Amino acid sequence: MITWNNLDTLDSYQELAKSDRVNLAEVMAGDNGAARVKKYSVPMAEGMVYNYAAKQIDDKVLDVLAKLAKEAQLTEKFEALYNGEVINTGEKRMVLHHMTRGQLGEAVVADGGDKRSFYVGEQKKIAEFANKVHSGAIANAAGEKFTTVVQIGIGGSDLGPRAMYLALENWAKVNNTFKMEAKFISNVDPDDAAGVLNTIDVAHSLFVLVSKSGTTLETLTNESFVKDALKNAGLDPAKHMVAVTSETSPVAKSDDYLAAFFMDDYIGGRFSSTSAVGGAVLSLAFGPEVFAQFLSGAAEEDKLAKNKDIFTNPALLDALIGVYERNVLGYPNTAVLPYSQALSRFPAHLQQLDMESNGKSVNRFGDPVNYPTGPVIFGEPGTNGQHSFYQLLHQGTDIVPLQFVGFKNSQMGRDVLIQDSTSQQKLCANVVAQIVAFACGKADEDRNKNFEGGRPSSIIIGEQLTPQALGALLAHFENKVMFQGFVWNINSFDQEGVQLGKVLAKRVLAHETDGALKVYSDLLNI
Amino acid sequence: MITWNNLDTLDSYQELAKSDRVNLAEVMAGDNGAARVKKYSVPMAEGMVYNYAAKQIDDKVLDVLAKLAKEAQLTEKFEALYNGEVINTGEKRMVLHHMTRGQLGEAVVADGGDKRSFYVGEQKKIAEFANKVHSGAIANAAGEKFTTVVQIGIGGSDLGPRAMYLALENWAKVNNTFKMEAKFISNVDPDDAAGVLNTIDVAHSLFVLVSKSGTTLETLTNESFVKDALKNAGLDPAKHMVAVTSETSPVAKSDDYLAAFFMDDYIGGRFSSTSAVGGAVLSLAFGPEVFAQFLSGAAEEDKLAKNKDIFTNPALLDALIGVYERNVLGYPNTAVLPYSQALSRFPAHLQQLDMESNGKSVNRFGDPVNYPTGPVIFGEPGTNGQHSFYQLLHQGTDIVPLQFVGFKNSQMGRDVLIQDSTSQQKLCANVVAQIVAFACGKADEDRNKNFEGGRPSSIIIGEQLTPQALGALLAHFENKVMFQGFVWNINSFDQEGVQLGKVLAKRVLAHETDGALKVYSDLLNI
Repeated sequence: MITWNNLDTLDSYQELAKSDRVNLAEVMAGDNGAARVKKYSVPMAEGMVYNYAAKQIDDKVLDVLAKLAKEAQLTEKFEALYNGEVINTGEKRMVLHHMTRGQLGEAVVADGGDKRSFYVGEQKKIAEFANKVHSGAIANAAGEKFTTVVQIGIGGSDLGPRAMYLALENWAKVNNTFKMEAKFISNVDPDDAAGVLNTIDVAHSLFVLVSKSGTTLETLTNESFVKDALKNAGLDPAKHMVAVTSETSPVAKSDDYLAAFFMDDYIGGRFSSTSAVGGAVLSLAFGPEVFAQFLSGAAEEDKLAKNKDIFTNPALLDALIGVYERNVLGYPNTAVLPYSQALSRFPAHLQQLDMESNGKSVNRFGDPVNYPTGPVIFGEPGTNGQHSFYQLLHQGTDIVPLQFVGFKNSQMGRDVLIQDSTSQQKLCANVVAQIVAFACGKADEDRNKNFEGGRPSSIIIGEQLTPQALGALLAHFENKVMFQGFVWNINSFDQEGVQLGKVLAKRVLAHETDGALKVYSDLLNI
Repeated sequence: MITWNNLDTLDSYQELAKSDRVNLAEVMAGDNGAARVKKYSVPMAEGMVYNYAAKQIDDKVLDVLAKLAKEAQLTEKFEALYNGEVINTGEKRMVLHHMTRGQLGEAVVADGGDKRSFYVGEQKKIAEFANKVHSGAIANAAGEKFTTVVQIGIGGSDLGPRAMYLALENWAKVNNTFKMEAKFISNVDPDDAAGVLNTIDVAHSLFVLVSKSGTTLETLTNESFVKDALKNAGLDPAKHMVAVTSETSPVAKSDDYLAAFFMDDYIGGRFSSTSAVGGAVLSLAFGPEVFAQFLSGAAEEDKLAKNKDIFTNPALLDALIGVYERNVLGYPNTAVLPYSQALSRFPAHLQQLDMESNGKSVNRFGDPVNYPTGPVIFGEPGTNGQHSFYQLLHQGTDIVPLQFVGFKNSQMGRDVLIQDSTSQQKLCANVVAQIVAFACGKADEDRNKNFEGGRPSSIIIGEQLTPQALGALLAHFENKVMFQGFVWNINSFDQEGVQLGKVLAKRVLAHETDGALKVYSDLLNI
């Protein structure tokens, strides 16, 4: 029997709050530090590991975190979720994004069919369509192959798919699976659509309209923008567009699209990269086999999230350590720092995933909570960040917990030997150096050159950023966010916080304003 | 006589800490809110305004902030800075980035010459070189024009110039001043250079190596990468590369470059967008006239920063309100949210500018400070962010102060009318709506749909994002960061926090490791 309780009502949380603070600089020094790095490591899927040696924890803290996992019934709640319980209570919906990549538990039947079959069926439809586009069986009016795919979507229909595309673009090129260049139009700013249209050949472009409801204002506006461009080029928009939407949306039955691929209400935008939302653009760009590999990596990682033992469940452990940092140690932010240029937009995707899911101040029953929930998430790839905001991370007045990601091998295999090391070795040496610099610091008589240390981090290490590794990485963070939502007893799957702005924007456009809203509107000439 | 004192020793700061808190939701409602929006506005250069009506301030708070400006001698310190005093005490250097765009005070003579003349001279050299490249007078070995410019640099040699390039790329295209496409290589990750090289035609590419010292490891490594690619294509690297460096660097006297343009030690990387660091790539991409317009906008804004009255000095006022939010109201973060797709990487540049400058915990004399200094800065363009992390900003448990930017007109002028409004109108309506939604909130019986409001923001409004407006915007934030550094009594112009990581990375590469450093090195196969 699952019970949903606020974090501060749990015995284990009270115990956690009383735990002795770990002196990170001290425990990470010398042989003890070496022993920690060997010990505090959990295998992930695809040969990756989650290493948390440089977190401000020890066996005693971990013991209480294990109790917390049990008392809060975290894996039981996950089980309820993947077995089809209505976990998104605000919108009264099931939460089924895991089912796009595997079946973790019981069959879930809804909307007149088995949901796993539905998701697999859409993947097959997309794969067949993509193969026809690649072969030229589906081509433009002149019978020429499409060379570019342009995703039109915003939020979850943009950030995740875009980050995944960028993560695999160079990998696909060197592995001969690069089929079509992808571009993305998201912002209602007309310069976004106009700028992208300026760089592509519309006659050889296929546009993917992504909107679950078929009513997202930005997306419909940008669709019109694109249709105008196609018409101005003497082309029939219906021969250049496909839709990813829900079966009940107005878009689904329209003749304005070459094809329609379906998603449903059980997958939120920010969890939709493994659904048709990511599937269409990624299958078109890299081929359906690469998308299938991406899903298989995610599926392997999802299986680990079922483990009840926190030491074999990296997402659960990561989630719990994050809660400890947020609620006991009082750190309001987390930085995500992938040492991989291919992951340049991965932090922006995690920013949405985490902040939109867990940036809530009422629990799942609508009562205010008395403790901090989701942190601010930000980040940029290393080593770039080292020459930018790391100054504050090392010597600023606040402590920011860090999440590093690193890979032993580059994606493209091209490298250069300078001062007896390759660029890849330099990249890896830097991330290693940063972890130890943050944790241990270094005393200096010149206080301006003094590093206090005690700044916690963890690192996910992989062999190479392949489609499988990317899927596993994505699933890890999705599951981490889910577990943290369970701990905080909030609904991680709705987003009521985005509604008020929409309502007021409509009022401004209808000129139904007064007070500050009217004066601001005048200032911006609306 | 200037005295440098810690913030918490100032009478005005004690008074500020005792000030009554403003109930933002209350004061922004109704006619009072309308009056605030009209009143709390300061003109900036280029017809822009800084509007701070939705900040948590009132006349009483502003009165104390004015006292603080006076007591901390903020404009006097700026005067000392631009007149050539050694403000960067850590590195014992003057701070002269303002002089790249104008002369605010006395002539400054150093390194055997007048510094303003030096900077203007380099601009002229760059302009002549760029014009020759555009005319084809300087061309590749086959006598063909260069079509692409690739900046090789990291940190300040990358983020600022890249953000400025993206900000003006589409503007230049529609205004017929687009000369060459620019690309950027920064990360030591070999996939960064390999990926960029994969997308360009090296035979028609000109590379700009940017390193003040001529010793930045990432940059030299990437230069080798590029030289290998040129040689492999049968080309002479010396005919494809220019350098931006200091006159004393090893690079300056080398025959390996078509030309060398100079910077000096008085301009830090993060303040170097208006120096040769930004000048070379931007002049090559858009023509020297556009770069000159960018400088003129910055120069106009700089002049406003001299004003002693906080109500005619937008950077000073912005800085003081930020200090009030950080030190009195206790908000640890600031989000930068430009409603302009062209400013997509402007927040990443401000992240470096702000966090590297003011992420310090010792004062300019090396003594620890007892108060928070620079906040964490993050952001993405709107409306994209609305569909991402705004959920937390509206309904999360922490309050994050917001800096909006909006323009009345788009850059490209292409638009579409949907539901009786253009995309540009929708964009502007959204930013207006967000300000009011954050400030005023909206009560709802369903607590999950309740918005508490009280979330402060300011907005900078401009006519259009032109080169001049961009220069003014950049200068505004540079000066804001400078003034905040003065308030906190820290040295905003060094970055000792980046050193320890460099030292440890070298040790890893030399295999001179033990303890945790050794085990991590093994995990990453170094």
